[in-house]
Amino acid sequence: MESLVSNVRKPTLILDARKARENIRKMAEKAASCGVRFRPHFKTHQSLEIGRWFREVGVRSITVSSLEMAAAFAGDGWSDITVAFPVNLREMETINELAAAIRLNVLVVHPETVEVLASRIQAPVGFFIKVDTGYHRTGISLEDHDRVRRMLRTASLSDRLHFRGFLTHAGHSYKARGTEQILSVHRESLEIMAELKAVFQSSVPELTLSVGDTPTCSVADSFPDVDEIRPGAFVFYDLMQYRIGSCSLDQVALVMACPVVAVHPERSEAVIYGGAVHFSKDTVDHTDGTPTYGWVTWFRADGWNVPTGCCTLASLSQEHGILRMCPDHLRNIRVGDLVGVVPVHCCLTANLMGEYRTLEGERIRRL
Amino acid sequence: MESLVSNVRKPTLILDARKARENIRKMAEKAASCGVRFRPHFKTHQSLEIGRWFREVGVRSITVSSLEMAAAFAGDGWSDITVAFPVNLREMETINELAAAIRLNVLVVHPETVEVLASRIQAPVGFFIKVDTGYHRTGISLEDHDRVRRMLRTASLSDRLHFRGFLTHAGHSYKARGTEQILSVHRESLEIMAELKAVFQSSVPELTLSVGDTPTCSVADSFPDVDEIRPGAFVFYDLMQYRIGSCSLDQVALVMACPVVAVHPERSEAVIYGGAVHFSKDTVDHTDGTPTYGWVTWFRADGWNVPTGCCTLASLSQEHGILRMCPDHLRNIRVGDLVGVVPVHCCLTANLMGEYRTLEGERIRRL
Repeated sequence: MESLVSNVRKPTLILDARKARENIRKMAEKAASCGVRFRPHFKTHQSLEIGRWFREVGVRSITVSSLEMAAAFAGDGWSDITVAFPVNLREMETINELAAAIRLNVLVVHPETVEVLASRIQAPVGFFIKVDTGYHRTGISLEDHDRVRRMLRTASLSDRLHFRGFLTHAGHSYKARGTEQILSVHRESLEIMAELKAVFQSSVPELTLSVGDTPTCSVADSFPDVDEIRPGAFVFYDLMQYRIGSCSLDQVALVMACPVVAVHPERSEAVIYGGAVHFSKDTVDHTDGTPTYGWVTWFRADGWNVPTGCCTLASLSQEHGILRMCPDHLRNIRVGDLVGVVPVHCCLTANLMGEYRTLEGERIRRL
Repeated sequence: MESLVSNVRKPTLILDARKARENIRKMAEKAASCGVRFRPHFKTHQSLEIGRWFREVGVRSITVSSLEMAAAFAGDGWSDITVAFPVNLREMETINELAAAIRLNVLVVHPETVEVLASRIQAPVGFFIKVDTGYHRTGISLEDHDRVRRMLRTASLSDRLHFRGFLTHAGHSYKARGTEQILSVHRESLEIMAELKAVFQSSVPELTLSVGDTPTCSVADSFPDVDEIRPGAFVFYDLMQYRIGSCSLDQVALVMACPVVAVHPERSEAVIYGGAVHFSKDTVDHTDGTPTYGWVTWFRADGWNVPTGCCTLASLSQEHGILRMCPDHLRNIRVGDLVGVVPVHCCLTANLMGEYRTLEGERIRRL
């Protein structure tokens, strides 16, 4: 770690592999103890090597958010993949290629999409119907029975298209703050899913329910009627998950190491090399209610300190980040220093950086 | 163009090369007619090929925001490069490599940085002192004469370190709306720069003033006392520049082509394949004051329509974008359609996409 800190030249995404593996192990255990399949979302880490850490705890089925990711992980031996993004009809060719190679599940919202799939699919494909349980991004609603029936009827005419069940992402859990609010989203979401299951199980006895967002999967310890969970961000966690109440700051496995390039004591600020092209631009509410892009931490021999929020990443431009500094740390910060910043949204930050560097100095490539 | 629209499979950044070349030509002409050197910022496009379009109109000196970009453009024959980002002392080795190869200028804020440069630099390097003319990101203030003197004294003891002058980025022009407000930022910023020049020109007669942000460079037609301008975003322009008042929507040279994957007439929304990993997450005020991530447009035979703002990109998650649709367009939009979205911040969007696709179907790679 010493040498890592002294060797960092530019913004570098540092991964505490031990924490990430512990996050994986805990979620796998929870899934097992709750009797649900663990189908983790790999869009967060997008790394073949980190994918293998999941395999070590018995994971065999995964979720991704694009066909490109599906193809990349299929190339590393993953043979049961759900693409949890509404079917993009312009990519039918790629869907066919993947369906021929692996056990592929896709996601549909519209009967028209099922019709196109039924007519153009050349190999067996499973499909989930996306359900909107309150996030209002996309999906059918609880009342859309006719729509579901239309999709099932179309699918039944195809010997390649197989209905797997209902899938939801209760993304409104990101607006929750604290266990009680998260669990309330969880309960309401599962009630809708269970109701749909009850309506259609008589005609499709094997239908499954797939749910999963990091807040509810981190906090809930019961998943009635659910067959599988698909959390993703829990592998690293981040400041947003901490502010929601999904994790402790000690569970966060990623920080960005950033060189200090200017210090402005007159306005209690420092400037780091580390901007929107490294962090992306998601914010979360700081303890004082203002939006923050990250919390500052300091490296130590075995990793980094748990950040207290006394110093924050207050704004970002393309390559610059502005730190708002508390007096104690302001006194000690110097140009050339290295600070850590716990990112707000690990998925977007990891997506921007080409690789992770572990505390042991190992480089782990992103796709 | 027809075939381009029918061939787009996933989010694709479409470049109207004719418009971009016209934006370059106009800015080069303005610089010439105002008697200032044109040192465009290449962090916006980050493309060797687009860089060559600038060479065609006589540009020989450029600006970048990282040493990596400097090295990449140096490899394509650019030999006069200013890195307009405060010197990162952890990259002294790279600075020395570049300084040995090209005419390199760096940016300093702190006397300590000049001391390190003076002691460790192994080849001639020019430096600008960064001035804060109101943006308050970083830089010295107008009153910091002692600080400047200390830097000049240190530099004078080195035969490799050469003071080039003062540099500012009046980034507070991004808060302006309309010509008058932009020009007010321009005037105030130039007054501060001229005052600094007046103080130090007696001791350093050859000192130059370097300014440049897209709003002021687009709108102003006089740059008194200024030696060079460094705008960047003008090459493409974007929705933010349009909302500021830097350009017309017809000058915007980039749109993201995105497949429609779901339509929700009940809430006047559609879902596109196109999210934060394609656009990044900058917003600008829509005409109704709400934040927007982009304006929707439709492709036609020779490019795309000028967007009216009736349909907007209202929210983004990792891969999904939510369009807020006006009734007329809502009626006609279908799953599988392709829409265009004028991005809010061309620099961050271009940074995320690996390549540009011209209307003629040519692929132009980013670094």
